[in-house]
Amino acid sequence: MSTYSDYINVSREELIQLLASKMKKKRFQHVLRVEETGLALAEHYGISKTKTSIACLLHDLMKNNPDDSSRQSIISNNLPLDLLDYGNAIWHGPVAAVYAEKSLDVTDTDILNAIANHTVGSDHMSPLEQVVFVADYIEPQCDFPGVEKARELAKKDLALVVGFASRETIKHLLAQNQRIYPQTIHTYNMYSTLLGEELND
Amino acid sequence: MSTYSDYINVSREELIQLLASKMKKKRFQHVLRVEETGLALAEHYGISKTKTSIACLLHDLMKNNPDDSSRQSIISNNLPLDLLDYGNAIWHGPVAAVYAEKSLDVTDTDILNAIANHTVGSDHMSPLEQVVFVADYIEPQCDFPGVEKARELAKKDLALVVGFASRETIKHLLAQNQRIYPQTIHTYNMYSTLLGEELND
Repeated sequence: MSTYSDYINVSREELIQLLASKMKKKRFQHVLRVEETGLALAEHYGISKTKTSIACLLHDLMKNNPDDSSRQSIISNNLPLDLLDYGNAIWHGPVAAVYAEKSLDVTDTDILNAIANHTVGSDHMSPLEQVVFVADYIEPQCDFPGVEKARELAKKDLALVVGFASRETIKHLLAQNQRIYPQTIHTYNMYSTLLGEELND
Repeated sequence: MSTYSDYINVSREELIQLLASKMKKKRFQHVLRVEETGLALAEHYGISKTKTSIACLLHDLMKNNPDDSSRQSIISNNLPLDLLDYGNAIWHGPVAAVYAEKSLDVTDTDILNAIANHTVGSDHMSPLEQVVFVADYIEPQCDFPGVEKARELAKKDLALVVGFASRETIKHLLAQNQRIYPQTIHTYNMYSTLLGEELND
């Protein structure tokens, strides 16, 4: 049975305090719901709960970070520079993963990838990456067209939810003429083929 | 005033004969309509009619080429290998551009790019590239939701049609859970920001 100290240099209680200091209250409550949802998925699919708890709690750590600070982190940590062409909505995951590695001594690449890719996914997502991505999409307060369908699918197959969520995200961005981060397309291209026609509107 | 012989080793009549031999009748008639539409756009926007005629006539030259032959062309001509993960719908443009260069002595990169990118676009399209891309999308027999809007936009600004068409193409692919060639996203990301909200459904 693994514990926090196997993966990170703070206890869960200390991490909770850190979160509360770095984000707004509504965001903090969302993070706790993502952890709760993630732990239920981890239980269902037999994935490490310790790693799930850490990755879920850290996923939005940099969501309220000032843009200038995040831009600086992207440059000084050699993250992909095309992140700079997008905004906080895209870069807060990778920036949080770097923070987890540098300041919280997280070295487990599965946890770091789950944090980094929770918004845009990737074309080969581990079970843990899928858990965080999906928990963020379906936590109980999430309320948008299709979320109930996503919650149903999550009981069956997480990869289906990844395909569904990335498809719906792209649709939403198209409707607003917003740019799409190319990694979102790689995620969609890999996981959308799992979606049967019965999932269409 | 440029002529065919400035850009290609066949006359327009010989090219027409070549087209008729390499594609089905319906496709051939589509190609002639694309040329006609392209020439009207070239007139409107002050673009070389000779180059427009050549690029439009050649754009679908490989649309009915056997898949094995096109795959071989992609490999032996060092085209991007990710084309192989997609189908004829995506690779027939690049394969036709290679044929134009190798067998018809076309060296003008603007013509070659217009042929290669007529399906997926690119993030920096020349006026000629835009003409072929748009003519293929709006030629008179094209009939799909939004084509009238695209025809209107084409009188105003070709770049708007590129943004509109790439957005609609992605929507169509999403609705069918089909994969999206990443270059289509780069085209959308560059040109969609030109689209005002009044263009939304």
